[in-house]
Amino acid sequence: MDGSLGAVQTGGHALPAERNLSVEYRVSRNVVRDALDLLRREGLIARIPGVGTMLKNSKMCQRLDQLEGLAESLEGYHVSVDNTVLADRQVQANALVAQKLGVAEGSDVVFVERLRIVDGTPFSLDDSYVRTDFAEALLEADLDRKDLFSLLEEFQQEALGWAEVTIEAVAADESIAEILQVQVASPLLLVQRIIYQEDGTPLDLEVIRYRADRFYLTSTLQRSK
Amino acid sequence: MDGSLGAVQTGGHALPAERNLSVEYRVSRNVVRDALDLLRREGLIARIPGVGTMLKNSKMCQRLDQLEGLAESLEGYHVSVDNTVLADRQVQANALVAQKLGVAEGSDVVFVERLRIVDGTPFSLDDSYVRTDFAEALLEADLDRKDLFSLLEEFQQEALGWAEVTIEAVAADESIAEILQVQVASPLLLVQRIIYQEDGTPLDLEVIRYRADRFYLTSTLQRSK
Repeated sequence: MDGSLGAVQTGGHALPAERNLSVEYRVSRNVVRDALDLLRREGLIARIPGVGTMLKNSKMCQRLDQLEGLAESLEGYHVSVDNTVLADRQVQANALVAQKLGVAEGSDVVFVERLRIVDGTPFSLDDSYVRTDFAEALLEADLDRKDLFSLLEEFQQEALGWAEVTIEAVAADESIAEILQVQVASPLLLVQRIIYQEDGTPLDLEVIRYRADRFYLTSTLQRSK
Repeated sequence: MDGSLGAVQTGGHALPAERNLSVEYRVSRNVVRDALDLLRREGLIARIPGVGTMLKNSKMCQRLDQLEGLAESLEGYHVSVDNTVLADRQVQANALVAQKLGVAEGSDVVFVERLRIVDGTPFSLDDSYVRTDFAEALLEADLDRKDLFSLLEEFQQEALGWAEVTIEAVAADESIAEILQVQVASPLLLVQRIIYQEDGTPLDLEVIRYRADRFYLTSTLQRSK
């Protein structure tokens, strides 16, 4: 499986400056400029004033070292993040939701389903189950534009505590494939998070399906025995 | 997507004691015993003396909080971990391997490919590219039985430092599907790790493909702004 390395991320999303590309590939500045122009017309790169030439629609990454909302994590990428709210209502917690949120089965929780769209292309489908302490405020909030984490922190007037996270790979079923605009059975990264308040109360269960061609996670692990 | 919660891990791999099952489900101890017997004959559970009745072949989990070898991570599961070495030789580093290991392209590195088998079923395919400092010892070592981390720590006589990790979902291609005994295009969890020595020297690049039906990762994330 020596070919497997194709999957290794090369990291970095800014292209070198034109003059550096010209030196590195021993071609004239005009050739570099023509090549970049082609990529720009194809929508693969974008020139950001004061930043440089950035790859567009490349696979984006979230660090697993701290708990962040999507918009926070993608701040460095110079991309647009849009949300389409697909569901936004009170539901009764099933056994699993109830267990994760520490409420009785059948209790009211707020269910929010959002399609996250990055640079115009579907990116992830985020299902959230939130304890009803802030139900009214949440159902009236601008979920199209605001990160759920920011809203929850606004409502409770303190920062969120921590999250227990699980990470799996799954195949897209028909309905998810249609929403995320991928082929049925495409690989997805499935991230589930239970968000806790500072005092240890579970506040929010999130089930997030990321298109595997658009997202990966990174982390630094210490060896300590 | 209210059905999505089927994917939430329930956690825990030991079954309650017979008397507790009997009380919980309001059936006699004999009914419980017959049911457990059936599951045991089907190979779904196993009784471990002094531990209790454990689920077998359930989806196993590795914590992302620290750097561990597979055998270390699965210690609590009472499962067998076997390795089949599929490749074990010196190769020349391609551009990506060279970049990750901080060596010149074309340099010798040791390539080790192992199929990890947990409780008799393929679990993951692990490709490792190791700097040649310990090439001779590594190629002579008992890679069938020993964790690579333990071997490297033995050779260099100090603990490994840390790892930079990326986590992605990918689809199994034909050759990987055959090795891991899954259908072509099944989802896999792809974990790539660069292992560093305490002094910051990259020592080992690992590209690991886990069967998604057998493995997930967990972590705890702090919210700190």
